[in-house]
Amino acid sequence: MAVSRDEQKRATREAILEAARQCFDAEGYEQTSVRDIASVAAVSAGSVIHHFGSKRELLYAALFEDLEASMREALVLPKSPPFGAELDAMTRIIFSYYQRRPRLSRVLLKESLFAEEPWASRFREQTARLHGAVEAMAERAKQRGEVSREVDVRVLAMSYVSFYYFALLAWAQGGHEEPARLVSVQMAQHMRGTGPANVSGG
Amino acid sequence: MAVSRDEQKRATREAILEAARQCFDAEGYEQTSVRDIASVAAVSAGSVIHHFGSKRELLYAALFEDLEASMREALVLPKSPPFGAELDAMTRIIFSYYQRRPRLSRVLLKESLFAEEPWASRFREQTARLHGAVEAMAERAKQRGEVSREVDVRVLAMSYVSFYYFALLAWAQGGHEEPARLVSVQMAQHMRGTGPANVSGG
Repeated sequence: MAVSRDEQKRATREAILEAARQCFDAEGYEQTSVRDIASVAAVSAGSVIHHFGSKRELLYAALFEDLEASMREALVLPKSPPFGAELDAMTRIIFSYYQRRPRLSRVLLKESLFAEEPWASRFREQTARLHGAVEAMAERAKQRGEVSREVDVRVLAMSYVSFYYFALLAWAQGGHEEPARLVSVQMAQHMRGTGPANVSGG
Repeated sequence: MAVSRDEQKRATREAILEAARQCFDAEGYEQTSVRDIASVAAVSAGSVIHHFGSKRELLYAALFEDLEASMREALVLPKSPPFGAELDAMTRIIFSYYQRRPRLSRVLLKESLFAEEPWASRFREQTARLHGAVEAMAERAKQRGEVSREVDVRVLAMSYVSFYYFALLAWAQGGHEEPARLVSVQMAQHMRGTGPANVSGG
């Protein structure tokens, strides 16, 4: 079976990315060398540099493409109201990605929040897509009468993203075992409100 | 006038910290050398190292003590209900600290969120104090009848801290000009709730 040069190139690229994820997660970013990654991927160090330029570029590519796949999965979820349950399902999928690779996630958080261009824009665009998905869900919830017409769905989506990052950071710092649950609890209070008139169902 | 050795030592320490803040904010952390800081503080590079050990330790000390002062100021504010206004006043004081030194604040955020020990604990403790102050304010608001008895004030405080960090990060990344206003808008929605029954005052 003939394998085209392009397919071969893509396969090598994928092997390097996967090796990088393994090494970064097992040893940490600083402790991993290009040579380590090349060795796990069974390619030469020159090939790693040829494909990605530097260890840092490789880090961004590995983190970004991996998270991208989980985000895509989470954002095309079948919609199943109510709104709170839809959000919870989405949160769980994305967070299970992070929790599969705790050490890499810590690096991901630090680097994605403070990346240099062009990666800063790419990570920002990723967050914007999450924000947009929540906004669209909230808009549909409004049409179903679950969310008040007077609510600004942009603010609602921003609050979700705030809880999302807070839970991720708390978890990455070792402060919370169940970040998805934390987001869920905070969103529930956000929807209910805290005023004296906002008595919960019971 | 005789100046004791201790006083002299403290004065030198303060001069070095202030020089470090100036240099880090003007040139960035990476671009600043111990020699630069020593020169601005009018001491020897050896004296900087004697007082702080390394540039990194100096960074933490400079950031931590500076933010600490602003936090203290914000947390002893005269209380003036309603709850929302109290929170807004506190947010404005802390954020005006960050906004005075944009570049240093970016470093502060990155480093404080992912610091190594013992600084990780110190920064965490600082956040915990902010959290505790909001919890206490919320408890008093409950007693005044502004917050429902059924509200978990820990969740409320966690939501405030989530909005606080989200706004700071958005601002540090160049995405928002008025982070304190952003927190205020999100907290207002959090208190009001988003459900169909939660119609705003007007």
